[in-house]
Amino acid sequence: MIKLPINTMRGFASDNNSGIHPSILSAIIEANENHTVGYGDDPYTKRAIEIFKEHFGSNTEIYFVFNGTGANILGLMQTTHSYSSIICAKTAHINVDECGAPERIAGVKLIDVEHSNGKITPEAILPYLNNFGDEHHSQPGAISISQVTEMGTVYTPEEIRALADLAHQHNMILHLDGARIANAAATLNLPFKAFTVDCGVDVVSFGGTKNGMMLGEAVLVFNPELTKGFEFRRKQTMQLFSKMRFVGAQFIAYFHDQLWLENARHSNEMAKILASEVSQLPQIKITVPVEANGIFATIPTAWIEPLQEQFYFYTWDEQKSEVRWMCSFDTTKKDIENFVALLKEFANRG
Amino acid sequence: MIKLPINTMRGFASDNNSGIHPSILSAIIEANENHTVGYGDDPYTKRAIEIFKEHFGSNTEIYFVFNGTGANILGLMQTTHSYSSIICAKTAHINVDECGAPERIAGVKLIDVEHSNGKITPEAILPYLNNFGDEHHSQPGAISISQVTEMGTVYTPEEIRALADLAHQHNMILHLDGARIANAAATLNLPFKAFTVDCGVDVVSFGGTKNGMMLGEAVLVFNPELTKGFEFRRKQTMQLFSKMRFVGAQFIAYFHDQLWLENARHSNEMAKILASEVSQLPQIKITVPVEANGIFATIPTAWIEPLQEQFYFYTWDEQKSEVRWMCSFDTTKKDIENFVALLKEFANRG
Amino acid sequence: MIKLPINTMRGFASDNNSGIHPSILSAIIEANENHTVGYGDDPYTKRAIEIFKEHFGSNTEIYFVFNGTGANILGLMQTTHSYSSIICAKTAHINVDECGAPERIAGVKLIDVEHSNGKITPEAILPYLNNFGDEHHSQPGAISISQVTEMGTVYTPEEIRALADLAHQHNMILHLDGARIANAAATLNLPFKAFTVDCGVDVVSFGGTKNGMMLGEAVLVFNPELTKGFEFRRKQTMQLFSKMRFVGAQFIAYFHDQLWLENARHSNEMAKILASEVSQLPQIKITVPVEANGIFATIPTAWIEPLQEQFYFYTWDEQKSEVRWMCSFDTTKKDIENFVALLKEFANRG
Amino acid sequence: MIKLPINTMRGFASDNNSGIHPSILSAIIEANENHTVGYGDDPYTKRAIEIFKEHFGSNTEIYFVFNGTGANILGLMQTTHSYSSIICAKTAHINVDECGAPERIAGVKLIDVEHSNGKITPEAILPYLNNFGDEHHSQPGAISISQVTEMGTVYTPEEIRALADLAHQHNMILHLDGARIANAAATLNLPFKAFTVDCGVDVVSFGGTKNGMMLGEAVLVFNPELTKGFEFRRKQTMQLFSKMRFVGAQFIAYFHDQLWLENARHSNEMAKILASEVSQLPQIKITVPVEANGIFATIPTAWIEPLQEQFYFYTWDEQKSEVRWMCSFDTTKKDIENFVALLKEFANRG
Repeated sequence: MIKLPINTMRGFASDNNSGIHPSILSAIIEANENHTVGYGDDPYTKRAIEIFKEHFGSNTEIYFVFNGTGANILGLMQTTHSYSSIICAKTAHINVDECGAPERIAGVKLIDVEHSNGKITPEAILPYLNNFGDEHHSQPGAISISQVTEMGTVYTPEEIRALADLAHQHNMILHLDGARIANAAATLNLPFKAFTVDCGVDVVSFGGTKNGMMLGEAVLVFNPELTKGFEFRRKQTMQLFSKMRFVGAQFIAYFHDQLWLENARHSNEMAKILASEVSQLPQIKITVPVEANGIFATIPTAWIEPLQEQFYFYTWDEQKSEVRWMCSFDTTKKDIENFVALLKEFANRG
Repeated sequence: MIKLPINTMRGFASDNNSGIHPSILSAIIEANENHTVGYGDDPYTKRAIEIFKEHFGSNTEIYFVFNGTGANILGLMQTTHSYSSIICAKTAHINVDECGAPERIAGVKLIDVEHSNGKITPEAILPYLNNFGDEHHSQPGAISISQVTEMGTVYTPEEIRALADLAHQHNMILHLDGARIANAAATLNLPFKAFTVDCGVDVVSFGGTKNGMMLGEAVLVFNPELTKGFEFRRKQTMQLFSKMRFVGAQFIAYFHDQLWLENARHSNEMAKILASEVSQLPQIKITVPVEANGIFATIPTAWIEPLQEQFYFYTWDEQKSEVRWMCSFDTTKKDIENFVALLKEFANRG
Repeated sequence: MIKLPINTMRGFASDNNSGIHPSILSAIIEANENHTVGYGDDPYTKRAIEIFKEHFGSNTEIYFVFNGTGANILGLMQTTHSYSSIICAKTAHINVDECGAPERIAGVKLIDVEHSNGKITPEAILPYLNNFGDEHHSQPGAISISQVTEMGTVYTPEEIRALADLAHQHNMILHLDGARIANAAATLNLPFKAFTVDCGVDVVSFGGTKNGMMLGEAVLVFNPELTKGFEFRRKQTMQLFSKMRFVGAQFIAYFHDQLWLENARHSNEMAKILASEVSQLPQIKITVPVEANGIFATIPTAWIEPLQEQFYFYTWDEQKSEVRWMCSFDTTKKDIENFVALLKEFANRG
Repeated sequence: MIKLPINTMRGFASDNNSGIHPSILSAIIEANENHTVGYGDDPYTKRAIEIFKEHFGSNTEIYFVFNGTGANILGLMQTTHSYSSIICAKTAHINVDECGAPERIAGVKLIDVEHSNGKITPEAILPYLNNFGDEHHSQPGAISISQVTEMGTVYTPEEIRALADLAHQHNMILHLDGARIANAAATLNLPFKAFTVDCGVDVVSFGGTKNGMMLGEAVLVFNPELTKGFEFRRKQTMQLFSKMRFVGAQFIAYFHDQLWLENARHSNEMAKILASEVSQLPQIKITVPVEANGIFATIPTAWIEPLQEQFYFYTWDEQKSEVRWMCSFDTTKKDIENFVALLKEFANRG
């Protein structure tokens, strides 16, 4: 009998602090039979690709990679050039959470623009759309947005369409970092296609890890002319999984009976409940509209450390005493109750 | 109920065509409880690191990554410079199977030298140890060997020591690509330490995927002075796994009760049996000494395609009609029997 | 007789629109005798290096490169890491005029901060000095300033010292892009050392091209521990000049009898005269203090094109109708008179 | 009066140990008048580009860069992909003399194949033209040859055509490193076009520095579809010269009255004379056919150092006691006589 460490922690630190959804784990177990060809030519991967095409259209090319950073970098380097600049929000994951991978691996320059609760607009971008054709300057090549944004907000299809139009008017592409794309779909109550392909998005990083998968993300490219050489770049950037069947199997389970939607709705719902509860405490102020599974709030600084001893979560902005609470597919009502009870205890104390 | 594709294939194509060993899968299931901090600060990863230190010595620094290519590239770029050359066998995985990742990601130059059944020697390397200090030339920075080699052979500790000495005499490091390091340990009947640290190896890519894990490799660095900035490079090259606990848990199971050794011994043993059986067929000629879990043999060209319809395996050298048969932790005696029976059928037909 | 195109253009577009100062051209002619070893081991290069040591101190290491972008990138990649971020002004040449070379070649991330007339301060930088040690984030590795700035202003030694102190407190280095360092020295009336080494600057891109040389810049590194491998990186980034003697010879002439200072004083003086003249025209407003050889001014939009037909110069900010006029070592009083006369003509017309 | 070091060295070390041809220096002086736009939009550069088109055809795109390594890397990265492999001779400059620039800057993998006196053949290349479409392997993207080769030999047009055909059959391009292309033209007694464009070469590094220019090389691309983005890559790799007029002016002089041919013929002729003289000394054995301006010969080891004290040259292969003597546009008959006299002195001493 193997002695694994015992782990009883609960928290709101990140939706990737959760484990694997039981149905997805079952798919891993089920796919664990016999031999398959490695690197994606197996029946699980092939079936998963078919399912993606059902959701995003038959023109979609699908490439599985290990993680979200890998998906973002490959998606961007595939569709732009080393001399391109990528315009994104100051808060974008590619800008602040990938240790310079866009610069080092894709070679591109990031131009981070002002945002409103994580969202960027054509107005914020326009001043940077210049110097086209001038060899001294990086050439605007892509607009990159996160859907859900890093601030927990959700772009409307109209907002995305406006950004896509702006990009295409300048021969640029629109990239969507969908680490939490399922939560966005749940919020919008729309199929994936309706706020990606149909709005003119060119390339998507489709995330599963933050919504119940163990690992595995997909780069979706909607324009077949932009896919030349992708497989080689994936291998060269060390993002090709040998036992790929286990990503394929997970995605089959993820899409089965709309598990992705159920999970996303659940975590969004948990966030809504938590937000509603905490907004009744006068010491807590929610700072960003709660549109998906994340809550940003200012709380008394003195509460932070003692709270963290019982529930994991991150301080978002030390100066402002702002914290972030993320709900997950496996966040329970009991988790919320326990956490709210603790918050109330703090609130009552003083 | 999810409808996963049904998969009944058996074969000898690669040891990564197998699935997950049941004990390792159990560890994944067991670790799938509650929340943990992502990116490696969880109790499973920490425990796995302790175990590695027990095997390789307390000076060892351990970094988990997604795959073998990731381990090789990070190990090499961490311990050399962009202007370094890496000396390796013509057959080395880094030279022929990583789509130029060493060049593109680490920036290094590979110098591929003549080998004997996949092994390189100081004599083969010496002619390339020149131009030190001359800015026009890439500077020899590392010798890289594979243990087990890509030809299924195993370096003795003495051979490794000789290469390490040569490297160190020239201020170079010795890197060991251990995608099949467990099979080598089983062959040598030695603990890992005895043919790595103790022989002067500086950095190891420690593989688990080809010996029963789902995914997950470790870069082991034995000289703490060579580890500065590793974590940043790992993140920047997109090799940092968010739900890292599932790599940690797998490695705990992998080392528990010497599962790694049991698996490696089994696949080595299967290869030995298969080799012994086929060597009795006059049409088949084993071309490389069978020292681990792989067999290289020439067979009649006309056999190859019909054989592949029933058992997956790769043609290694079309010109020579040479094929490769890899045995795995889950290769059964029945697999061998069935395959040998088929071969005999072919042999008897003429 | 060779028919070269005839060229009679005069203008204020850039100080690199001038040719070669006659004394420097003489040095090229004089050095053009017999054979020398290539790549820098020649007597001219050696003598030039000695001269640099006289100016910057004997601990200085000097590396000649082709151009300013080469000097900046090599200086930064030599003294930071691929996972470093470089903090600079939004207007910095490395940020807007090098087509993403810092990102693509050095791999670093640029963080562009608010400036005041091209100058940055500890206050503007401090908010970005965070996340040290966190693998998800690029690590602040350098502060980079331009002296003269791209807006024609000059840092005082105290301002530079404050930035160096800030950098060193955070284990960062201070890089100085000295494409117009001679003009700064002329303005400050100080030797180079007084506002570089003596203020804690760690690495300088020392430019000559904009002050009368044909080509050739030097990277100066003041800490010998930061120089390991520079020669290899220079060759690998294609910045090693075979007939290096012609850079050495130019620099010998450049430093002889303080030609650099004479040239810089002249172009600064010309800018002062031009500024004084144009400030008398009510339609023209100088927008940035004129501290070196560049003038920024708003002028009536309708003037720009007809003016450019007679004198080259660039529009700096179309929106604001702001233009830039650069003076050069070979700008003559006659050039100024002619240009001012033309401006007055425009002014009088209405 | 500036005191430049005095330089009286003569030798046979390299054709880049010479200075600038007087006519080319005159062109620099002549172009040094007034102002011009920087970065190539000046009348000298434009005229030089026209001249190149006269020599190579109007479909040729011409890009000036600083040096030969820059030309090679830009030519290759422009016409292949980061996941490409470049097949070249073991002796190729890109393989042994560029400190890994192809790998670090272009990201490509070099495959160095056996050569005959520096020349490679379809037969030597064919075994490496495999694994097309397999993501694990770098994809053969270019064949690169040097004309003149690094061993002083010259490809015939037929040999080049055969290599171009092979490349094109595999959707690869043929690159020609023409650091000494003028010497090849002189040997073949053919216009440049006849052994480049007309033979199917796709991209040429056209060198001038080794044949009398101060610096400046050109990348010539014959297929306009392969030129997209070149200017940005040139700037990003730090190969854009601000005072470009001085490259343009040099090339105008270089092509005027066939100066390039006169220079190349002269250095070839000097090599022929030297070869003829030394071949009469029984202690000296010429090891490679002398087809251009370089001589390879074995000489008594004991001679090497004392000879080098009077005439610079390089030992090519220490083991074999093989040396290289390069003749240059400014090698004089007197140089040859003096050197031969010295050799005879050594020979007579025994």
